[in-house]
Order: sequence, then structure tokens, then C-alpha cells
Amino acid sequence: MTTETLSENKAFGGTQGVYRHASRATGTDMTFSVFVPPQAEHGPCPVLWYLSGLTCTHANVTEKGEYRAACAQHGIIFVAPDTSPRGDGVADDDSYDMGQGAGFYVDATQEPWTPHFMMRSYIEEELPALIAGQFPVDMARQGITGHSMGGHGALTIGLRNSGTYRSISAFAPIASPLNCPWGEKALSGYLGDDRAAWRDYDACALIEDGARAPALLVDQGTADQFLEEQLKPELLEAACSKADIPLTLNLRAGYDHSYYFISSFMADHVAWHAERLKA
Amino acid sequence: MTTETLSENKAFGGTQGVYRHASRATGTDMTFSVFVPPQAEHGPCPVLWYLSGLTCTHANVTEKGEYRAACAQHGIIFVAPDTSPRGDGVADDDSYDMGQGAGFYVDATQEPWTPHFMMRSYIEEELPALIAGQFPVDMARQGITGHSMGGHGALTIGLRNSGTYRSISAFAPIASPLNCPWGEKALSGYLGDDRAAWRDYDACALIEDGARAPALLVDQGTADQFLEEQLKPELLEAACSKADIPLTLNLRAGYDHSYYFISSFMADHVAWHAERLKA
Repeated sequence: MTTETLSENKAFGGTQGVYRHASRATGTDMTFSVFVPPQAEHGPCPVLWYLSGLTCTHANVTEKGEYRAACAQHGIIFVAPDTSPRGDGVADDDSYDMGQGAGFYVDATQEPWTPHFMMRSYIEEELPALIAGQFPVDMARQGITGHSMGGHGALTIGLRNSGTYRSISAFAPIASPLNCPWGEKALSGYLGDDRAAWRDYDACALIEDGARAPALLVDQGTADQFLEEQLKPELLEAACSKADIPLTLNLRAGYDHSYYFISSFMADHVAWHAERLKA
Repeated sequence: MTTETLSENKAFGGTQGVYRHASRATGTDMTFSVFVPPQAEHGPCPVLWYLSGLTCTHANVTEKGEYRAACAQHGIIFVAPDTSPRGDGVADDDSYDMGQGAGFYVDATQEPWTPHFMMRSYIEEELPALIAGQFPVDMARQGITGHSMGGHGALTIGLRNSGTYRSISAFAPIASPLNCPWGEKALSGYLGDDRAAWRDYDACALIEDGARAPALLVDQGTADQFLEEQLKPELLEAACSKADIPLTLNLRAGYDHSYYFISSFMADHVAWHAERLKA
């Protein structure tokens, strides 16, 4: 497996890199970023995965997420994948919430999205294997977080693989794709009309069906333009309450859906993960 | 004076805004950003000016500078202007280091750069008056910093106006435009061939000619691609030494010229300014 280095810059005593590789899962080149903190000079470090939202690539959080100071403080490796396969030979849609930039972290079963839109396999299997082989990570200590569509990704991937991810958090996640326009459009497109097949990709449905986590942390801005129609943290709150999953839901007055919101609470999330990953 | 709000986002308990106004100094619309920390609810706050480098607008540091956490901690208002006038009716040059995006913080005296390239007057006079009138700033407590061409701007504007700016720092500044290709090209273009007219725009020459500051802080990456040919911190070191100006020159091993470098030491600079501005 060859990984091409697109850039490496020293930052906060560590190295912020951007890399590209030919993905078997998606059948395309995929780009991702990795921050390796200075502690990695002395041994493997825990890893925090960050899944991005609609329209984003690895670059948004890498440039605007303000995670490096906290990761350098706590000794955490931070990995930011892309949100979908991309390229001329890859299916797409004119809208921002379907196709390239909008992979929703599913393995598609429907044309034209098969065979490339295999982001579940990419994030759960292929990229972790690459990271484990090429970076100084302690793969027994993994956490996962994300924003919006990527918050949905972090919650669902974390809940489906609770043995792999010790800590799960999200910023303004799509709490229940089964119950919002973004989710209904994406899941019907990628998975077809049988809503039973969608339940693997809905945090609330996964919890109803028995998935558990030791704790969840969610931050949500109250001025988020997508809060009521798309995000619906109250559904996650209800599912966690019924399942006795301790959910810390921080409603942040006046914050919106942007990286100004994410960066404001990024250090809190990194510290929360670090506490669990280093325990 | 009408100022148009382009965006305002809550961040770190304060407000990150981007604004546009019609500048008299440049004869163009000018865009700038201002972060107002939460402390401003209780009264005027000190202000730190940040001048950006070649090719940049207000957006680079606003998105990638990672100053908001430190400004919210110390109660500092952070203002980031653009680097030049812009627009279809404004002179330009095909190269990245002259014309639009490369104002060098001078008042141009040469065609075709007059009348628009009046960045000295804009930064020293017009924008401070606007900021003083429309934001909760304590104008008796101003500091100035910047990066590369903007580091040159911060040093020269600070040294020329030592009664106005209590604290002056820079990231990888062009220490002496009189003695590097970027400076020779820009100053000859904007000011003409009489090098005596350039001395007002050269930190080392200003110090030789008598300008003083209580202290200077400079961070410089040792892996900066522009270090030897363009930046030359050793010239500033020599000038400060001769003039008994206490210069703290931090050479940062392995850091380059990018915002990965700037953001790594931004909190240190904000804290250094805060100590002096709040004394």
C-alpha cells in the first residue's frame, strides 16, 4: 500500500501531514490528514478520528478546527478523512447533499453509487489498517468524533463498533437520518427504499436495536440553522435516556453550524477523549 | 461612515465578525475582520492589530490563525485588515509580490499605484478611527503584530508610532525591505528609486534613524523557505542590539512560513501583548 505525502508542516511541536492513497474500498484516490503530536517520539499515541460534514474534505477541519494545540497537550493523533470518493469517473449529483462530498459514511447498495460510495468500509476497515501500519498509533486506544453528517458518521460507526472506539462524541450531529430530509434523501439514494436497511446508519435506531456506548458527548449550537429540521438532538436524547446511555448534551447558546462553533469546543472534546483513551 | 456587516459568528464566547466599508484612503471598498471577546460586555478592551502577508486577505488569519482562544482568555480585540486595495479599477501586477495583495503598508507616490495604494494611511489613520467609533475598544491600549510582509508592516508602523502602540511583535517579518528582493521590488515600484524615501518603511533603518520601542518580540521558523533571501532577522537583531532595544528573537526549529507556524505561536504572542496592554 503506497501512501503519497502531499504536505507535512511542523505545528505545535508535532507534524501536520496531508496524504493520498489509492483506496481499494472506494476504487479512487483518497486524501486524508494526520496530526502527529510530539509525544509520538516516545511511543505510540491514542488516535482520535474526525469525520467531516457535507461539502467538506479533510481540509476544513485541518485548517479551521483548532485541534492541534489540544492534541499536542494530550498526546493524541488526529486523523481527518475525506467525506466521499471523488473524481471524474465517480457518480455525482448537482445538489450539495448527495454524491461527492456527501458520502454519509454508508456502503451504497444502489446504482449509480455502487461501486465507489463505500465510505463505511473505508472508515471502519481500510483507513484504520493503513494508519496502523504507517503512523505511530496505539490502535487499542481509538476515539471518534465528527460534525453534522460526520457527527452522524461518528455516532453510528462508534455505536456499531463499541469494542474498537473507547470514546464517541459529535458536534451538531444528524441524530437520526431516518427522521430528517438530509437522511431520507441520502439513505434512500444510497440504500434503496427499504427503511429496515437504513437502521444500521441511524444512531437512534442502532441504540433502539441494542447498540451501547459507555458515554456520549454532543455539543450543539442553539443558533444552528439546521437544528430543528435536520439535526434533532432531542431524538438522540430520548434514545439514550431509554437505553441508559449517559449522554452529555451541551446546548451552546448563540452558536451556529460553522467551524467557529466547532473550534470553540474542540479542545473540550479532545480533552474528553484523552481522558478516556489514556485511562 | 457606513460599515456593512458581511458575517458575524459566535466563537469562544465572543463574536468573530467580517465587515466592509468604503475607504477614503484607498478609494476602494475594504474588508476587515474583528474578533470581540466576551470581556467586551463589561467595558472597552485592548486591541491587537494583525497585518497579513503577501497574497493574503483578512480571511487567512481569521480562519487559520487560532487567535480566538487566547484573545477570549485575555480579553483582547483582534483586528485583521486586508493587505491592499482591490478591484477592477485598481492597478495590479501579474506577480504575487506587487500590486493587489501586496500593498506593503506604504503610501505609494508612483504611478500607477497612486492613488489607491495608500495602506499606511489606511492602517495608521482611517481604520483605527473606524474601529474606535464602532467597536468597544480602549484605544489607549493598542498592540500590533503581523506575518512576513505584515510583520514588516507591524514593525514599521509600530516603530513610527511608538506613542500609539504599546506592544509590537512579528512572525517571520521582512526585517529590512532595503536589503531583500521583495522589498527592493515593492519599494522601488511604490516609492520610486530614491532609497532615502524607503527608510520610513524599513524597521532597521527606522531604528538606525532613531525610532525606539520598549521591547520587540519576533518568532521565526528555521525551516522557513524565505529566511535567508528575504526575511533576514539578523539585520533586525543587529539594529536592536546597537540601539539597546530589547528584542526577543525566538528561532523555532523546523517551522516553515505557513499558518501552521503562526498558529503554533499565536497564543504566546497574544499573551505577550496582553501583558503589556493590560499593565
